[in-house]
Amino acid sequence: MRHSFDLSLYLVLDPVQCGGHDAALGVARAALEGGATLVQLRAPEWHKRAWFDLARELLPITRAHGVPFVINDHVDVALAVGADGVHIGQRDLPAGLARRLLGPVALIGLSVSNLVEAADAQGLAGVVDYLGAGPVYATPTKTDASAPCGIDGLAAIRAATRFPTVAIGGIQTHNAADVMRAKPAGLAVVSAICKAADPRDAAAALRATIARAQT
Amino acid sequence: MRHSFDLSLYLVLDPVQCGGHDAALGVARAALEGGATLVQLRAPEWHKRAWFDLARELLPITRAHGVPFVINDHVDVALAVGADGVHIGQRDLPAGLARRLLGPVALIGLSVSNLVEAADAQGLAGVVDYLGAGPVYATPTKTDASAPCGIDGLAAIRAATRFPTVAIGGIQTHNAADVMRAKPAGLAVVSAICKAADPRDAAAALRATIARAQT
Repeated sequence: MRHSFDLSLYLVLDPVQCGGHDAALGVARAALEGGATLVQLRAPEWHKRAWFDLARELLPITRAHGVPFVINDHVDVALAVGADGVHIGQRDLPAGLARRLLGPVALIGLSVSNLVEAADAQGLAGVVDYLGAGPVYATPTKTDASAPCGIDGLAAIRAATRFPTVAIGGIQTHNAADVMRAKPAGLAVVSAICKAADPRDAAAALRATIARAQT
Repeated sequence: MRHSFDLSLYLVLDPVQCGGHDAALGVARAALEGGATLVQLRAPEWHKRAWFDLARELLPITRAHGVPFVINDHVDVALAVGADGVHIGQRDLPAGLARRLLGPVALIGLSVSNLVEAADAQGLAGVVDYLGAGPVYATPTKTDASAPCGIDGLAAIRAATRFPTVAIGGIQTHNAADVMRAKPAGLAVVSAICKAADPRDAAAALRATIARAQT
């Protein structure tokens, strides 16, 4: 288990949305300057060599900001670059195996989209560090996503679990305050930062909204 | 490096072509009875949990036949199930990292499609055990494949490399003898077994053709 991490503003970095490898590095830097507290790399369209090449350049950037860097799905990429952990979905490798491969101090997150999956995760203390709950709203970002849980569904998942929970799915600057009413530990965003005209400003605005809700 | 392996009849098991998880297990069993000497699992459309679930059922079947079992691309799946190794492409994790993650006795194969890639692989002694050379023919199986190298291209790659070479790409019962004239160590097939009416007979016929060419 990771001793300390902050889910407040969780950037899911999609390099295709950013505009490629170099643009993704720029977005990550800007988002971290704007206050992102965690970075996940997710590039479902990419071959693993491209993940690896980007991840090993992202790692020192996140390190410089003292922010954890995790890899979506691919435990092998995380091991290859020495990332801080992985975020896995219900159809990825079982969480217990990811923990065994990554070791005791890795940061491991698990996606849940409903109360059944949240209940299944209750036995994963010592295996999983946090839950990603959603999609809160329908989103075009992830074509294989589950049905949206809505803000009430998010609140129900959060109340039912022992794990800190980051909300994900369709979260933008304009609805961030609404989602925070369900009292997740933080918000995960993709296009709200990756496609922002100014990713630093977008991150700072989201972070401010989240901070207001957390006080 | 793996001490002993036989590339003669290398089954690339595509569970979608086979008709799903259970059908793939049946095809693997039949192919091994028919003389397959190595099994690779490749399921590019599948999520990793489905790879894992099938791989851990395939492993004891291949073990019972004394045949190595490798995973396409996903080093983490190979580690999770304790497979014998991986087969990686030019756009997967670098071979040296796969070797580091899998350890010294894993079986690691690398795809090459031309003489430049074969030359690049020359420095990988102790890292890679064999090369997969192809596609020999155009194939609808792998939509992101390189241009076909043909039988002459295969012969040139085989002559230029220190590694044992298995030919792949569009190989069927009717052209197996032609491909063997380039003197590869063996033939890798996908649909020729996965879509065969009788996978055991198909494997036996291919194995016989290969054996005739090897004498």
